[in-house]
Amino acid sequence: MQKQLQLQERPNGLPDEHTFSTKEIEIGSPNDNELLVKTLYLSVDPYMRGRMSDAKSYIAPFELNQAISGGSIAEVIESNVSSIPKGTIVSGLLPFQEYVVVKPDQVRTLEMHGAPISAALGALGMPGLTAYFGLDDIGKPKEGETVVISGAAGAVGSIAGQLARLKGARAVGIVGSQEKVDFLVNELGFSAAINYKEDNMEEALKQACPDGIDVYFENVGGEVSDHIWPLLNPLARIPVCGAISAYNLKKGEKDSGPRVQTYLVKTRARMQGFLYGDYADQYEKAYSELSEYVKNKEIVFKETILDGFDRIPEAFNGLFTGKNIGKQLVKISDPS
Amino acid sequence: MQKQLQLQERPNGLPDEHTFSTKEIEIGSPNDNELLVKTLYLSVDPYMRGRMSDAKSYIAPFELNQAISGGSIAEVIESNVSSIPKGTIVSGLLPFQEYVVVKPDQVRTLEMHGAPISAALGALGMPGLTAYFGLDDIGKPKEGETVVISGAAGAVGSIAGQLARLKGARAVGIVGSQEKVDFLVNELGFSAAINYKEDNMEEALKQACPDGIDVYFENVGGEVSDHIWPLLNPLARIPVCGAISAYNLKKGEKDSGPRVQTYLVKTRARMQGFLYGDYADQYEKAYSELSEYVKNKEIVFKETILDGFDRIPEAFNGLFTGKNIGKQLVKISDPS
Repeated sequence: MQKQLQLQERPNGLPDEHTFSTKEIEIGSPNDNELLVKTLYLSVDPYMRGRMSDAKSYIAPFELNQAISGGSIAEVIESNVSSIPKGTIVSGLLPFQEYVVVKPDQVRTLEMHGAPISAALGALGMPGLTAYFGLDDIGKPKEGETVVISGAAGAVGSIAGQLARLKGARAVGIVGSQEKVDFLVNELGFSAAINYKEDNMEEALKQACPDGIDVYFENVGGEVSDHIWPLLNPLARIPVCGAISAYNLKKGEKDSGPRVQTYLVKTRARMQGFLYGDYADQYEKAYSELSEYVKNKEIVFKETILDGFDRIPEAFNGLFTGKNIGKQLVKISDPS
Repeated sequence: MQKQLQLQERPNGLPDEHTFSTKEIEIGSPNDNELLVKTLYLSVDPYMRGRMSDAKSYIAPFELNQAISGGSIAEVIESNVSSIPKGTIVSGLLPFQEYVVVKPDQVRTLEMHGAPISAALGALGMPGLTAYFGLDDIGKPKEGETVVISGAAGAVGSIAGQLARLKGARAVGIVGSQEKVDFLVNELGFSAAINYKEDNMEEALKQACPDGIDVYFENVGGEVSDHIWPLLNPLARIPVCGAISAYNLKKGEKDSGPRVQTYLVKTRARMQGFLYGDYADQYEKAYSELSEYVKNKEIVFKETILDGFDRIPEAFNGLFTGKNIGKQLVKISDPS
């Protein structure tokens, strides 16, 4: 028997003790052309909150009393697929359980080029690709420009800031603690960082962005971002990756603030939602650039890892309460 | 002597009797390589409200106790420029006065291909180009898509809707009177029109857009647009041309509503301010297409014309109180 994490109740606000339930299910065994994999790491990501509600979005909601699924790294422990031998490390979007029977097209074999396998869920996985395409297609930072990143210590934001820096732009991060401020400036090479919980946002932004804001990489939404609009430069670009501050609003709570239209008109700014999956035809280029940066230590990545299947809910909620620095992972087991 | 319209006081809210003053000034006479032109039509446009405040924008504020300027059509009545003979009809961004001494590079000679000269301030001028580039570069309506236009009976909106229709899209207009609803549906070929002052916006939009909204051509901002975001389709495009509802807010009044970020994330929609002047390298293509449509009556345009220099303030304020259908002009004098 093994554990599986199910969605028991759709949360109203932040997930609580009624949201998830852990069920004991059978491990199952692989048929022809199937693999049995053992989960090593699971990824918790803010977008998963959207799947816990039943609102229409770009990805289907999780079903009640079914497994939650998400980014996963696993080891093949039984193989009926000749091209993927036992011992292969794979990743995929898999149900959150300790063992999974999969078809070969549900996973990809990891080639880490020296990086730890967990990076396949962070800098060299969905978050890294998200940062990459948000900047490459929408943000387009140029040398000397100012790029502000909210949620800048998170899995996506920390990579986005470093990619902006590598393009010769000034990266300015917005985060929620002094520890994160120090991390951005001292370890990731951000030009400045602001603690929105302590600093006067209006003054701090003006000081950190004396030449205005050319790119705003949006991860958080809410009041933090309301302070950005008045500082936008002409032809500014705003890749909208997420709006984490609004994901846990309770029914009836409103996400309201200054409307953006007059700012967009005055600056001819472009504000655009995006999804890394829309750029599947460019994954190879992105992986290869990101891998090279990681190998050369031009991009530093950090992980916050909780240990044990039972800590998935705690890890997930930590994303919304500022607990993680870098990529939040849950370690399920060691490789054989 | 002649009349000149000056900015006397920066308005707080809608311009009032203190905002403008009419001064008597000398007519002046042209030097070498100059022209004396007589004003025939003046254009009043919503963007001019922005120039009456001293806030930073894409175009410099009007100066106090100096002439207001704007789109103008004029006749050359004295010429010291061999290539532009007396009697030529020209247009340009000129001070609002009855006669102006200009250099030849301040004006362009009109070639109307059979259209009335006033069209050079509307369908075949700045408003037409604005509609054209907003759709051509950002909106990109495709056959069968639903394009919603706010301010749809105005100078820009009425052209935008017709251009969308000519691309095979369904044009749905939002306006503020039954007369305008009828105008859009019966004269301009819109598929549907909504009166935001009478209709229940949420229900009316759902009914007019059963397949959701692919393009929202934004002219008005405010509460009207708040109803658009929940109906956006994946990969929707939102050219933000203006936000007229917010132009006359008084000091301290807030333009607040639902934040757009979560909608943009869910749909990967693109929302972008733009200015026709950024597309100067494509004017020829745009003029030629628009002229052809007008000539073939595939685009119908309407004008609301007030008569007399003293009616400029009334014409201007009418833009914000829904008085005009189509392009609002002020006629100053007849051609010789």
